[in-house]
Amino acid sequence: MWLPDEALRPLGERRVLVAVGPDDPVGATVVAEVRAATARWGGSVTVASPDASLTGDAARGHDVVLALVPSSTASDEPTRALADDVPTASGSFGVLREGATTTVLGLDAAGLLYGLHHLVRAGAAASEGDTPLTWYSPTNDVRMLDHWDNVDVHPVMGQVERGYAGGSIFYADGRVRDDLSRVAAYARLLGSVGINAVSINNVNVHRTEARLLTDGLPDVARIAALFRPHGIRVHLSVSFAAPMTVGDLPTSDPLDADVQAWWAARVADVYDVVPDFGGFVVKADSEGQPGPFAYGRDHADGANLLARALKPFGGTVFWRAFVYDHKQDWRDRSTDRARAAHDHFSPLDGRFDDNVVLQVKYGPMDFQTREPVSPVIAAMPGTRLAVELQVTQEYTGQQQHAVWLGPQWSEILRFRPWKDGGRTVADVAAGTAGPPDARRAGLVAVSNVGDDAFWTGHPLAQANLYTFARLAWDPFADPQTLLDEWIGLTFPDADPVVRETLHRVLDDSWRTYEDYTAPLGVGFMVRPGHHYGPDVDGYEYTPWGTYHFADRDGIGVDRTRATGTGFTGQFPAPWRDVYEDVATCPDELLLFFHHVPWSHVLHSGVSVAQHVYDTHWDGAARTVENAAAWDAIAGQVPADLHARVADRLAEQVRSAHEWRDQLRTYVYRHSGILDTTGRSIF
Amino acid sequence: MWLPDEALRPLGERRVLVAVGPDDPVGATVVAEVRAATARWGGSVTVASPDASLTGDAARGHDVVLALVPSSTASDEPTRALADDVPTASGSFGVLREGATTTVLGLDAAGLLYGLHHLVRAGAAASEGDTPLTWYSPTNDVRMLDHWDNVDVHPVMGQVERGYAGGSIFYADGRVRDDLSRVAAYARLLGSVGINAVSINNVNVHRTEARLLTDGLPDVARIAALFRPHGIRVHLSVSFAAPMTVGDLPTSDPLDADVQAWWAARVADVYDVVPDFGGFVVKADSEGQPGPFAYGRDHADGANLLARALKPFGGTVFWRAFVYDHKQDWRDRSTDRARAAHDHFSPLDGRFDDNVVLQVKYGPMDFQTREPVSPVIAAMPGTRLAVELQVTQEYTGQQQHAVWLGPQWSEILRFRPWKDGGRTVADVAAGTAGPPDARRAGLVAVSNVGDDAFWTGHPLAQANLYTFARLAWDPFADPQTLLDEWIGLTFPDADPVVRETLHRVLDDSWRTYEDYTAPLGVGFMVRPGHHYGPDVDGYEYTPWGTYHFADRDGIGVDRTRATGTGFTGQFPAPWRDVYEDVATCPDELLLFFHHVPWSHVLHSGVSVAQHVYDTHWDGAARTVENAAAWDAIAGQVPADLHARVADRLAEQVRSAHEWRDQLRTYVYRHSGILDTTGRSIF
Repeated sequence: MWLPDEALRPLGERRVLVAVGPDDPVGATVVAEVRAATARWGGSVTVASPDASLTGDAARGHDVVLALVPSSTASDEPTRALADDVPTASGSFGVLREGATTTVLGLDAAGLLYGLHHLVRAGAAASEGDTPLTWYSPTNDVRMLDHWDNVDVHPVMGQVERGYAGGSIFYADGRVRDDLSRVAAYARLLGSVGINAVSINNVNVHRTEARLLTDGLPDVARIAALFRPHGIRVHLSVSFAAPMTVGDLPTSDPLDADVQAWWAARVADVYDVVPDFGGFVVKADSEGQPGPFAYGRDHADGANLLARALKPFGGTVFWRAFVYDHKQDWRDRSTDRARAAHDHFSPLDGRFDDNVVLQVKYGPMDFQTREPVSPVIAAMPGTRLAVELQVTQEYTGQQQHAVWLGPQWSEILRFRPWKDGGRTVADVAAGTAGPPDARRAGLVAVSNVGDDAFWTGHPLAQANLYTFARLAWDPFADPQTLLDEWIGLTFPDADPVVRETLHRVLDDSWRTYEDYTAPLGVGFMVRPGHHYGPDVDGYEYTPWGTYHFADRDGIGVDRTRATGTGFTGQFPAPWRDVYEDVATCPDELLLFFHHVPWSHVLHSGVSVAQHVYDTHWDGAARTVENAAAWDAIAGQVPADLHARVADRLAEQVRSAHEWRDQLRTYVYRHSGILDTTGRSIF
Repeated sequence: MWLPDEALRPLGERRVLVAVGPDDPVGATVVAEVRAATARWGGSVTVASPDASLTGDAARGHDVVLALVPSSTASDEPTRALADDVPTASGSFGVLREGATTTVLGLDAAGLLYGLHHLVRAGAAASEGDTPLTWYSPTNDVRMLDHWDNVDVHPVMGQVERGYAGGSIFYADGRVRDDLSRVAAYARLLGSVGINAVSINNVNVHRTEARLLTDGLPDVARIAALFRPHGIRVHLSVSFAAPMTVGDLPTSDPLDADVQAWWAARVADVYDVVPDFGGFVVKADSEGQPGPFAYGRDHADGANLLARALKPFGGTVFWRAFVYDHKQDWRDRSTDRARAAHDHFSPLDGRFDDNVVLQVKYGPMDFQTREPVSPVIAAMPGTRLAVELQVTQEYTGQQQHAVWLGPQWSEILRFRPWKDGGRTVADVAAGTAGPPDARRAGLVAVSNVGDDAFWTGHPLAQANLYTFARLAWDPFADPQTLLDEWIGLTFPDADPVVRETLHRVLDDSWRTYEDYTAPLGVGFMVRPGHHYGPDVDGYEYTPWGTYHFADRDGIGVDRTRATGTGFTGQFPAPWRDVYEDVATCPDELLLFFHHVPWSHVLHSGVSVAQHVYDTHWDGAARTVENAAAWDAIAGQVPADLHARVADRLAEQVRSAHEWRDQLRTYVYRHSGILDTTGRSIF
């Protein structure tokens, strides 16, 4: 992972002054990082009182000064002047280089930690030239990772649901691990990139996991103690039915006073042992999980039940909007899973308490390689809304395929649901540019780590975790720059050929994956259950609402208002009209919104059939090129890492060709249209 | 199951004389059955020496006499005369009714047991009228059930592989059960219908199961002791790699002297504790199981290795012919799984030792609802060959659907591979009508029982177990008569309406199932892995060799010599030509042998597409009628049994309609041909 010792060398060679309170756990982390780096690399560290003056004589003799923003009553004139335009968001920091000294001013201890890692990322450049005071502030209050880890190994889903990196770092043998050193290392990595919240158990809450809230509290406290020094608050996924399954109540009705009292008591117990507990994540009335519908209540009733229990302690409810009918009849073309979240939640806007965050998947379906942005994001101006991404690559190659998702996420975050020049998805999530009642939230993602030696199975999948965290801090950051950062922090000694090879393998990898998998936004076409590898009709006749309706004449889902499910009508203008019209609908989403003939000519100038033939052939071919490029740098990266990546690239080549051949054959068998290039079809 | 107390009433009301040796375990079973029945129903039993004279005064005062055939030196003239045309096969018996006495003469104790149950089946009629001495003899020496039970629960396949009736009656919690009373009851049921061999563990031999041969021998002996009194010999499935995985040898090469010695020693150990041990069942070089190919040896080398170890003790090797490439490339249309067994085994004819039985699945694929008979059956005149059927309903509804397989098995057994009037499949298996060197074998099937309260999950699936056993005794028995027997023995008090309802639900159930599932012999179209429910393309792009090649123009597998895989050439005349020509190929196997247009007109007069539309609609409709018929007899059979069957019939209705709608829709989407009747397609 990023931050090998070498990455801290430029800092470690300096004389560093750290002014921080001795009791602050995050401040102590800053001191410890500096102490370790300077001890290793020959620099020095001086720890001063947080009240010490930081300019003039006090800072002299130090190359780097790390200090908190002085209180406004400080007598020291220069620092007071500095503080005038300090941002207000926790974690903000300023950086100034004057003379031979680089000064980092943290708004709070978290800001100091983030400022420290800002210097680490800058490397040697942090000690060059002069720069005026510049403030850095996280765009999002919420920068969160959800873990879908089970305590018990689930008979179907395994220990980590949709996990592709071995076992859980939190749990083994049916309980919380005794040795949590991997968790401590993970917390350090997350803190270094600004993550400030984790949820430590699967949103599908099974029997054992439900008891983390009661019997498991001492273990939750142990885990929280490892995240706290890195500015990260721990959250739990809870079952809406817990008052019945964990408690002994006859109901979980959110309007029942005993239920309310039960939750209040559980929350008080949690805060007794974890005073900075973050709150709950809830998947309710979704894919078999219990929820308020059982009592004729709506999801605002459900979320507010938990929010009111958490409110006195400053906790938050992350309430997932992933609610749909997973027992749909495939024969019924009027029901549309894509509509479900908007249908359920848009009427509830304004009804959620202010410590509820509605957690909305970026698309209306389920973390596909390509979907439109969820219309729910544009429909909840009176609700705190976090956008949920999926770092674990459930539908994007399962960490067998090298697929760097930075460009996808950046596209989503920069999408403007209303109009050119209007607010972006990122603005909505941050709550920074909305109407007066918009509330700050941010980004949440499902993590991709496990107890694998390389943390993420595919070592290059680490780049996704890094990129997500950095986009959570600044959603408008250039993803290529973030990838550069990750490469620099992870391979600090890499020569230009290695860097170039990493870029070659990763830069376009999302589009390459899209090219050889489900085409033109139609989604799925994966093997049911595990979701790996091609099965074009795998979900076609299932209850999951995930169809493509291919026949001898054409393919795609008619979601128009004119003749289809009307899903286009859930978008504001202009998108409701752009998507409605096959002439204006973007190619990459054509089959998400329209059922068209195989011969339909795309804006790109080729037919749908020929598009499948071409993109699948070319996408698979690029995986071969990537594997060859990686082979060429053998010996220039650690041997075990090279071997692991080479194995995964070989599997990607195999799998991509399977996708290629199945998709090309399927389209030919259905359409009868020949590939104009004459390449093999089976 | 069959043989409730009531079924033994007609016998139990009689005065019965049993003349049998006191130490024979099977003879003791005969005595115990008679004793229990007469005690319950008011009759009486006299146990005499086996040397007692059985005619004249000795028999006077008894309604029923059960005795062994006297030795040829017996002084008693009349019994000597009787014995003149006694059959030689173990288990044979004669029945005679003269005056008021019914006499059963067993060739051996097993014959006495079978004769007893012959009387039980006959019921009151056994004591009516006079009948001359008639001999009954099993057609097959081998009448065997294989259990695919695992000791450990397999993570994917569960405890009983392809088991649909709960856990194993042999194993629980990773070891042989302490309480084997269900095994004892099962042994009695099997003995009553002539089964004389069982194999007690899965042919896929995993780690724990491999040790039944060593550490597990005391438990094997316990199980054998429960089968022995019913004339049943116990067998074990063994792993060809056992010399390496159980022993410590560096090889399992069948020509290695240490390997031969290892097997000889293991076999001697087994016979020490199970003197009547039957032998081994082996799945080698098949679906990942080890085999002789690893050493460049062939399957005769492999089978003879084990046969020679067993030979001194009278044991037999059942060597499965189910060998094919399960990692086939779906793109390669020249490889044909249907060819595999014949390609592998026909060159080996004559090379197998005489205590090897080649165990051949009835069809060339894998227990499909409809396949041609395997050409291997006609290709091994110099080999003992058992035909393997599947009582457990892996591909025929998994004991959720009521599918009585008697008619399928009867068709298979009566099939004449050579010509009209020639030998049948049953003749080949029995070895009774072949060339001089033909050897006797018989029938083997995978059992369908578990620890379910009704033994078989679906109570009506008991009829399959019964019918198989009775066909193993007499392959030419009329299956309807056997179903009648099963109904009589299982529901002895049933009134005509109940009997008629059972017939209505079961008589045509195999064809009904065929009607709503994969059409015209094409096979599969089931969900991969578990094999339940429809998934038309589920196996289309997999390595399993099970394809249908449907496209917009047509469907089916070209297995002709002229243009296809040449599989038709594996059959003797006339079938090699009948199947080769689309004009003479039977409709029900058309898509097994030919790829034809959707518009191809069948002998039945409708197109392939319309055939699918019609049969699927009608087949699904019949499941509704069956469920209604069953509902109508509520109160006339035990309530728990009625409820269980009703639940299963409801699931069959649901599943059949799913099959119906998916198949009809799939065909329409591909062919574009309208159902001429206008019924719904989706």
